[in-house]
Amino acid sequence: MKSKTIQYKHLKTFCEELFQRLGFTVSNSVIITDVLLMSDLFGIHSHGLNRIGMYHHHIQKGYIDPQGQPEIVTETPVSAVIDGKRGMGQLVSSYAMNIAIEKAKTSGVGLVTVRNSNHYGIAGYYSLMASNEGMIGISMTNSLAAVVPTYGKEPMLGTNPIAFSFPTNPSPFLFDSATSVVSVGKIEVYDRLSKPIPLGWGLNMDGNDEQNPAEVLKSVFSSKSGLHPLGGGSELFGGHKGYGFSMVVEILSSIISLGTTSNHVEKIDGNAGVCHFFAAIDPKIFGDPVDIQNHLETYLEEIRNSEKAEGQNRIYTHGEKEAESFLRRKVDGIVLSEKTLDQLVSIANEVNANIKEYLE
Amino acid sequence: MKSKTIQYKHLKTFCEELFQRLGFTVSNSVIITDVLLMSDLFGIHSHGLNRIGMYHHHIQKGYIDPQGQPEIVTETPVSAVIDGKRGMGQLVSSYAMNIAIEKAKTSGVGLVTVRNSNHYGIAGYYSLMASNEGMIGISMTNSLAAVVPTYGKEPMLGTNPIAFSFPTNPSPFLFDSATSVVSVGKIEVYDRLSKPIPLGWGLNMDGNDEQNPAEVLKSVFSSKSGLHPLGGGSELFGGHKGYGFSMVVEILSSIISLGTTSNHVEKIDGNAGVCHFFAAIDPKIFGDPVDIQNHLETYLEEIRNSEKAEGQNRIYTHGEKEAESFLRRKVDGIVLSEKTLDQLVSIANEVNANIKEYLE
Repeated sequence: MKSKTIQYKHLKTFCEELFQRLGFTVSNSVIITDVLLMSDLFGIHSHGLNRIGMYHHHIQKGYIDPQGQPEIVTETPVSAVIDGKRGMGQLVSSYAMNIAIEKAKTSGVGLVTVRNSNHYGIAGYYSLMASNEGMIGISMTNSLAAVVPTYGKEPMLGTNPIAFSFPTNPSPFLFDSATSVVSVGKIEVYDRLSKPIPLGWGLNMDGNDEQNPAEVLKSVFSSKSGLHPLGGGSELFGGHKGYGFSMVVEILSSIISLGTTSNHVEKIDGNAGVCHFFAAIDPKIFGDPVDIQNHLETYLEEIRNSEKAEGQNRIYTHGEKEAESFLRRKVDGIVLSEKTLDQLVSIANEVNANIKEYLE
Repeated sequence: MKSKTIQYKHLKTFCEELFQRLGFTVSNSVIITDVLLMSDLFGIHSHGLNRIGMYHHHIQKGYIDPQGQPEIVTETPVSAVIDGKRGMGQLVSSYAMNIAIEKAKTSGVGLVTVRNSNHYGIAGYYSLMASNEGMIGISMTNSLAAVVPTYGKEPMLGTNPIAFSFPTNPSPFLFDSATSVVSVGKIEVYDRLSKPIPLGWGLNMDGNDEQNPAEVLKSVFSSKSGLHPLGGGSELFGGHKGYGFSMVVEILSSIISLGTTSNHVEKIDGNAGVCHFFAAIDPKIFGDPVDIQNHLETYLEEIRNSEKAEGQNRIYTHGEKEAESFLRRKVDGIVLSEKTLDQLVSIANEVNANIKEYLE
C-alpha cells in the first residue's frame, strides 16, 4: 500500500479498536490511542502509529502485559514509587503523572518514579498533562541502551528523553528532547535515502565514528555500539554534557525507583524493565500563576522578536512547531508511510480485525 | 608577576582577608572563599579567584551590596522565593540552598527560586551542599546574556548552567554543565593562544559563524551576538536541545521568581538581577537511601568498566575529575596565572591590604 493521508478521526477509531483486539479494555485503548496520535499530530511519526509493530512484538515477547495494573509501592504527600507491573508504558505513565498532579494539587509538588514499565511514546504527552492543569510538568524515561558514554564504545544509556512544559498562550511551552545527538529514527531516515550521516552522530560495530547510516543502525540493533550523546563524541562540542543529562534521567527514573538501568533494559525475557520519572509543580507555591505566566509569555515574545541570524526569518520557541503541526494535521489528516500502513494492515489481519476499512 | 603555585591554606587566608576589606563580615568572607576556592581546587579556574576582579568591579558598580541580606518573599513547606537584595551571589545561594535542604528534611523536597542576586560562582558548590547531606541536589542560575537562540543573532540567554549531584562513594556524582556549547572562558583560552576555534562555538558581530576567537569575544562583550547553545548553531547536531535546556534554567530561576531574564541581566545600573534555582530531594521519600546509593554505584561502575572507544583508556563518570583534582591541588597547591596574580595584588593594594605576602 502506498503512503496515504488519513483523517485523524478514522485513525482514532482504527487504533482504539486495534488495541482492544490486542487485549486492552475500551478505556485503556482510548488512552493509548491518544498518546500515539498526539505524536503523529505533532509530526513526530517515529513515536506514533509507526510504533504499533514494536508494541505488538513486545506483547508477544511478554514485555507488555495488556492486563498489567500499575501499583503504588510506597508514597508520601510529595512522592510515589510505582511498579508498572509490565503494563503498557502509556497506561502506566498516565496513571503515574495523574498521581504527581494530585499530589501537586495538595502539596504543591508531586515527584513520581516508575519501574517495570515499557516504552511510553513521546515524553511530552505526560508533561502536557500537568501544564494543561496549570502546572509545570516534567517527564523523563530511560530506554533500551543505544547511546555510548563519552569515550566509550558500548551503549550504556538509552536515548533518555526529557520533556518540560509550562502553561502559556497561545500554546504551552513544550521542550521535549532526547539526550542523544539524534534519534535512531533520524538515522533510519538517512538510511532510506542512502544519504551519509554527519560525523559525530554515531559509531560502527568497531566503535569508530561512522558516516554510513546502515553501519550505525547495525551497531545499535546488535547493541555493539550506538549513538553519541547530545554534544557528540568528544568534549570539544560538549558530548560529556549530553552524557550528563542522560545520567540525570537515569538517576531519576531507574536509580531512585530501584529499577532497571538502560544497559539492562530489554535484556531479560518477560520484563523490559523500562523506568520513568514524572514531576508536577504548582506555580502557586511561588507566586501568582497569572503574573508568572505573563512574565514567561513576555520573555518568549522577546526571544521570537529578537534579531535573526543571517538567512533566517524565524526563531521558534519550544512547542510552537508542535502546536502548529497539531492544528494543521487535525484538519488535513496524517500521512502514513507505506511501511507503517503495511504493518498496520498486517497486524489488523493477524488479530482478525475487520477494521482495515479505515485505512483504505 | 609570573604564574605561580600557591598553597591552598595561604590562598584561603588571603581571600578571607581580602573579602573582609571589601566590606564583608568574617563569616561571610569564609563562605565566599570556600565557594571560590572549591572551583580552583576542581581545576575550574574560570570560576575561582580569577573572578575576584569581576566581583570587585560589580561591588563598585552597585550590582553587589556587601551588606545585602537575602529575604524570604513567600514560602510553603516545600518551597520558597528569595529576594537576594543584591547580596553577593555566593551568600544568597548558600542561604537559599540551606532553606531547600531544611525543607527537604521535613517535607522530603525543597524548591527555592531566587531573584535580585549576583553571579554565584560554580553551580556545583550548591548541589554538593545537598548531596553532602545525603540528598539529591540541583542548582541552576541564569546570567548575563551570552548565548543566542537557535537561528538567532542576539544573545537572549545566559550560559545558564545546571548542576545535579547525588551522594555516592568514593566521591559524589556531580554533573555541572553550562547549557552553552562552551564557556566564554574557553574562547578566551583560544584567544590567548591565538588558536582558531572550531566552527559552531560562536558568532561574530554580524551574526555569522566565526573561527577567530577575538571576534567572538568582541560580539559577546558588546552583547551584539554570542555563543551557540549546546548542540551548536543548527538543528543538525541538536542546537535546539541546548537552547531548550537553557530555557528550563530560565523558567525555574528568572520566571517563577518573577525576576530578571538573562537578556535584561546587568542592563540596569545598581541591580544585576541574576536569578537562581535550588532543589533538595531526600531519597528517603522513594526508598532505602542505602539501597538507592548502592544501585547507582553499581551502575557507575558498569559504565566505567564498559568497553572503550578506539584509542581511549578511561571512561569518566561525572564528578571523578573534580574529586581527583581537589585532592591533588589540596596537596600540591593551586597554579595562579600571571593575569590572576596581578589582579589580586592590584585589588589588595587598592583596599590597602597588607596581605600580598601570601601570594609571594
